Amino acid sequence: MNETIQTILNHRSIRKFTNQQLSKEQIQFIVKAAQQASTSSYVMAYTIIGVTDEEKKAQLATISGQSYVKENGHLFVFCADLYRIYEHTSKSTTVQKGLQSTEQFIVATIDAALAAQNASLAAESMGLGICFIGSLRNDIRKTNDILQLPEYVIPLFGLAVGYPAKNYEQKPRLPFDVIYHENGYDNDLQRQKQLIKKFDEEISSYYTTRTENKRTDTWTDQMRRKYSKLIRMDVSDFVHHKKLNKK
Amino acid sequence: MNETIQTILNHRSIRKFTNQQLSKEQIQFIVKAAQQASTSSYVMAYTIIGVTDEEKKAQLATISGQSYVKENGHLFVFCADLYRIYEHTSKSTTVQKGLQSTEQFIVATIDAALAAQNASLAAESMGLGICFIGSLRNDIRKTNDILQLPEYVIPLFGLAVGYPAKNYEQKPRLPFDVIYHENGYDNDLQRQKQLIKKFDEEISSYYTTRTENKRTDTWTDQMRRKYSKLIRMDVSDFVHHKKLNKK
Repeated sequence: MNETIQTILNHRSIRKFTNQQLSKEQIQFIVKAAQQASTSSYVMAYTIIGVTDEEKKAQLATISGQSYVKENGHLFVFCADLYRIYEHTSKSTTVQKGLQSTEQFIVATIDAALAAQNASLAAESMGLGICFIGSLRNDIRKTNDILQLPEYVIPLFGLAVGYPAKNYEQKPRLPFDVIYHENGYDNDLQRQKQLIKKFDEEISSYYTTRTENKRTDTWTDQMRRKYSKLIRMDVSDFVHHKKLNKK
Repeated sequence: MNETIQTILNHRSIRKFTNQQLSKEQIQFIVKAAQQASTSSYVMAYTIIGVTDEEKKAQLATISGQSYVKENGHLFVFCADLYRIYEHTSKSTTVQKGLQSTEQFIVATIDAALAAQNASLAAESMGLGICFIGSLRNDIRKTNDILQLPEYVIPLFGLAVGYPAKNYEQKPRLPFDVIYHENGYDNDLQRQKQLIKKFDEEISSYYTTRTENKRTDTWTDQMRRKYSKLIRMDVSDFVHHKKLNKK
């Protein structure tokens, strides 16, 4: 198994970092790695914001509810960005209509995510730990205001990077045959149900035997709890307000 | 520079593959690498479909307009998938409302993209080449039908993987300071305009000196041409029809 695959397979989210800050060189390596990801039709429809201002980090940590948004080696925020196209190419009615489409929203979101995964792996390959922070969308409007994002730009997620202050165990993934189907969607529900049931047993055993935060739980129960509450239902209006994903 | 970063920085899209097929073991490695990516709240809201059926590959290649959709070592299609949550947890009104939100559409799209970037790098680290295929969305409804995707699932993009049949040059990326901003969006438009102008000169020189498909072009002109036409405006209705991204 080569080193890249080892880095990939060794991933676990790190939620506690030392206060050692990343060097300028490390940040540059990580961003350059992000930039080398594939991008739809060469659009590069994303912007990465590095946040070092302590006050801003504290505000973002409050939105997120996670201490590692403030306490880390460096905080990146990945944004879907179609403003660059709008501002630097042409502002015709047709361009605007295109930029406001769901298609272009998908393009920008995927572009940003591909770049972020490269950034994560580059960081992890240097011995750093990472954690994605979707909880910046708990108050996406406020996150947007803190980062002074123009129209056609929205904050998607943060990425905390730093030197791990403690070890975390790896979490199992859904079985291969649940994620990977051949030649078409596996519409054999009974088979999928059985696979997920087996996974629930595995994850239940993981939760009862892991070193910290032991509990009785399954993936299905977790998902049931998670989706029993409506969260971030304001994201839609906010995104439209930023002129994205409208049609 | 470590091997993972070398793999990342060495990326270029490959658009011509030999007809050597990936082994089952290679496919498993690539999918397992994909699965190890971060996922929002452990949702794992994506499905990967491997397409080997020649007839289906031919149909997808027609939609895409790209020969490498048919001719490759293996074809993966990455789908945003919230059906698994719907089907295997609870079908309550609240759950449905949540799954249909823009927030959950973002979650699933990002989950799929993070997994795909891991898959790409795993493949590239094994000496294989890759190319993302957004053009499956040229007729997203037909792509959906070919893969028999249920409600709450949409095809996002393909990923062609295989043994490169020819070399491709690397394409420059937008300058670091265009993509990476500090503590807030860089709203200094003049500065950004100058950086992009400099990049246009660089890319213009790249296009006139590269070995194949020499032409006179800039990034700004490319984007202007691209966005002067409306494309894939049906994606929005299709996504809503699949019960996603509705509110």
